[in-house]
Amino acid sequence: MLSLDINTLHRGYRDGTLTPEAVVTEVYRRIAARGDDHVWLHLVPEVDALAAARDLQARVPPRRGPDVLSLYGLPFSVKDNLHVAGMPTTAGCPAFSHIAEQTATAIVRACDGGAILVGKTNMDQFANGLVGVRSPTGFPVNLFNPEYIPGGSSSGAGISVGAGLVSFAFGSDTGGSGRVPGAMCNVVGLKPTPGVISVAGFFYANRSFDVCPVFALTVEDACRVFEAVRGFDPADDYSLVEAAAYDISPRQPEHFLFGVPAAADLTFFGDRVHERQYAQALERLEAMGGRKVEIDFAPFREAGRMLFDSPVLAERLVDLAGFFESRAQDMHHTTYAVTTKALGYSAADAYKAQYQLRRLKRRVDVEMDKCDVLVLPTTGTIYRIAEVEADPITLNANNGYYTYFANPMQLSAVSVPASFRGDGLPFAICFVAGAMEEGLLRGLAGRFHALSGLPAGATGVPVASLYAAV
Amino acid sequence: MLSLDINTLHRGYRDGTLTPEAVVTEVYRRIAARGDDHVWLHLVPEVDALAAARDLQARVPPRRGPDVLSLYGLPFSVKDNLHVAGMPTTAGCPAFSHIAEQTATAIVRACDGGAILVGKTNMDQFANGLVGVRSPTGFPVNLFNPEYIPGGSSSGAGISVGAGLVSFAFGSDTGGSGRVPGAMCNVVGLKPTPGVISVAGFFYANRSFDVCPVFALTVEDACRVFEAVRGFDPADDYSLVEAAAYDISPRQPEHFLFGVPAAADLTFFGDRVHERQYAQALERLEAMGGRKVEIDFAPFREAGRMLFDSPVLAERLVDLAGFFESRAQDMHHTTYAVTTKALGYSAADAYKAQYQLRRLKRRVDVEMDKCDVLVLPTTGTIYRIAEVEADPITLNANNGYYTYFANPMQLSAVSVPASFRGDGLPFAICFVAGAMEEGLLRGLAGRFHALSGLPAGATGVPVASLYAAV
Repeated sequence: MLSLDINTLHRGYRDGTLTPEAVVTEVYRRIAARGDDHVWLHLVPEVDALAAARDLQARVPPRRGPDVLSLYGLPFSVKDNLHVAGMPTTAGCPAFSHIAEQTATAIVRACDGGAILVGKTNMDQFANGLVGVRSPTGFPVNLFNPEYIPGGSSSGAGISVGAGLVSFAFGSDTGGSGRVPGAMCNVVGLKPTPGVISVAGFFYANRSFDVCPVFALTVEDACRVFEAVRGFDPADDYSLVEAAAYDISPRQPEHFLFGVPAAADLTFFGDRVHERQYAQALERLEAMGGRKVEIDFAPFREAGRMLFDSPVLAERLVDLAGFFESRAQDMHHTTYAVTTKALGYSAADAYKAQYQLRRLKRRVDVEMDKCDVLVLPTTGTIYRIAEVEADPITLNANNGYYTYFANPMQLSAVSVPASFRGDGLPFAICFVAGAMEEGLLRGLAGRFHALSGLPAGATGVPVASLYAAV
Repeated sequence: MLSLDINTLHRGYRDGTLTPEAVVTEVYRRIAARGDDHVWLHLVPEVDALAAARDLQARVPPRRGPDVLSLYGLPFSVKDNLHVAGMPTTAGCPAFSHIAEQTATAIVRACDGGAILVGKTNMDQFANGLVGVRSPTGFPVNLFNPEYIPGGSSSGAGISVGAGLVSFAFGSDTGGSGRVPGAMCNVVGLKPTPGVISVAGFFYANRSFDVCPVFALTVEDACRVFEAVRGFDPADDYSLVEAAAYDISPRQPEHFLFGVPAAADLTFFGDRVHERQYAQALERLEAMGGRKVEIDFAPFREAGRMLFDSPVLAERLVDLAGFFESRAQDMHHTTYAVTTKALGYSAADAYKAQYQLRRLKRRVDVEMDKCDVLVLPTTGTIYRIAEVEADPITLNANNGYYTYFANPMQLSAVSVPASFRGDGLPFAICFVAGAMEEGLLRGLAGRFHALSGLPAGATGVPVASLYAAV
């Protein structure tokens, strides 16, 4: 099976064995072969994608393409809460569907860089959820065992990469939606520092810290996409002026300190297998030159808890407002149940919550200063679909235990496949670093992944081969 | 009359003609001579201030004092919304009075620098107002004409400096309270970048952008106090890590661009005298090497308006909460009327307001990039007490037309005396610069003030002599 990672495609373009048109044809063949897998909410018609590929080839011939455009000829998907002009945006809610007038800046930049949009992917409704099953039109299942969830809310994004349907995928990440599906689909989920990739043209959850994550088969691929699309955007009021200015070349310190929560703060929700995988991953980090330091996880946990148990939740009402007021009955019942709690908070409550986040940020910074990166299990366990359906709110919150805090605390993070369990399900760890420290994540997480001995996604291709130089 | 500016006192200490004890004695003599002027809400007992002066002398003899401690032997006042351990904090509301347990960081740092606290000054209740007459126990009047307001909310702070009772004063500035009383008392009011002087230990109005302004007789004195007390404070969650790290030495570009609003955005509320004074001040800036550029004032005005006509107002309910709920009837009727509007806003409204401020900040930055500094009249006019009492809300808002925006837009600013009108009332302009640009304000506003030919405050001492090197 042809791997769609950047090195493989660009090598093929350079040596004349591949063309964007041929790659797009193969992509649509694979998509068709999977049948009704609920990965896509809207597919670009194949003729249009092929036309885009031919147009690209006509502008820049494939042999020179990768030298001219860093994302040349890379098929990609976008989560359905990113607007694409002329296409419907549903955000996982059919009643919310409307044709978008503008295209998200990140998508424009990816296409400017030579990437080819394939379609819009399924998601937990309104990006509310870390499970992937809160989609009323049907949801995709885990690539490695159909009884298990794919992770959410960017469920389709993770699968589109893991199943080898695209080279990379854009999702959205508020509380972990760019990392959790990465973990459960055995792919990389890079969640950059808030404000570095523009989120102009997104349907927002928590607009003040939503980010655009990149799913890819390798850390290196995710970072190359990140590099191509990052930058200040005057259309995004939360965009950082320094977004394109700081160094993101990979930093691989020979020795490094990785922070882990004290034992009392570690929880695997009873999953001894995940617990063991985590311990083994830490041993590999030590073999890589890392030294473990214990940090106080309390401020991280408290900040995380605020996303769904404080006035911070009310931020989700802003973009949703008109719809929530008039058509709440058309929402997924769980999404509605979670969101409606937000109505009870006053403006003064919201300011108090902002202060509380500031206070926690101070405490988080103190802990982050004790190490180079934090290394956490991306999730403490992986649930069956039936388990989540039986207890949708608690099990969903469990999935966010190690991810919720990162955006409100202005950190960067990447979820990286670590191992497969005996039962064939994937396990991933998450590297967390300070703001604008993606270069450190790129170096450390990239090395960890390259040495993992794993296949990429569900493609069967060894990741080690994908990290080799072109 | 002995001037209490830093150069004069430090010269006296150095040459042996003054001691802190003698200066404190003189300060209390002046305070007593003014009788019941409503400047003070709580005076440090003279014996205690004298003991502090003697203690200082014992630790560092006066001749060496100024070389060892940058604020050596400088008497100062603090507004009554800054906590001093063991003293009552009323914030201008007797019913709110309580004994503080901790001292504001800025005060601790000033005392550590050798300054001597004299007392706590009167204010518009809960720092809500720019007039100085919203104090239920009586209010101080303008130093130059008792029919006129002193400006607020830091009314007592401005007068304590202008009347020569202290060397400097701390106030608070949310929407202009550190600049407006400076203008009306013919003294300098420096409002630093939010987060540079700690506001830990303040009773907050808008906690997310309240700052600690410094009132002094010269720009140089205000900046020297600023320099001594600025710095990161882990106790202030909004404190900037770089607070003490950036350069604030005076920058005096030979040529500079100063921004002024287009004519349609300039208003003097019918006051042709203030209008003329402003035009003359701009001519003097041109003579100083400045070139005028017109900027679009709309985003500044819109950001300013939000302080009292948007969910941003609800931030004032946070620190006030318990009191407002149980004892609102004990509040000043105008303060109550303004504050109660905040109750109607939801948490989602508050987030929307935050987004709106972010959007305006982008537009403000574009305008600020057109010039080195903005130069505005600090206020468009100066009102009689009777006028304000007849229409307390509208005339108060008029006073904020040129000041409200600066803190929510994260700018730095200094109000500087510019001239006296024919009727003996003072007129001031305000230099506004970007975040952490106090060095530029120091250079430009300092030169403008030094060349103004004015007396300092109501002391009769020519400011030019105070700017001379020690």
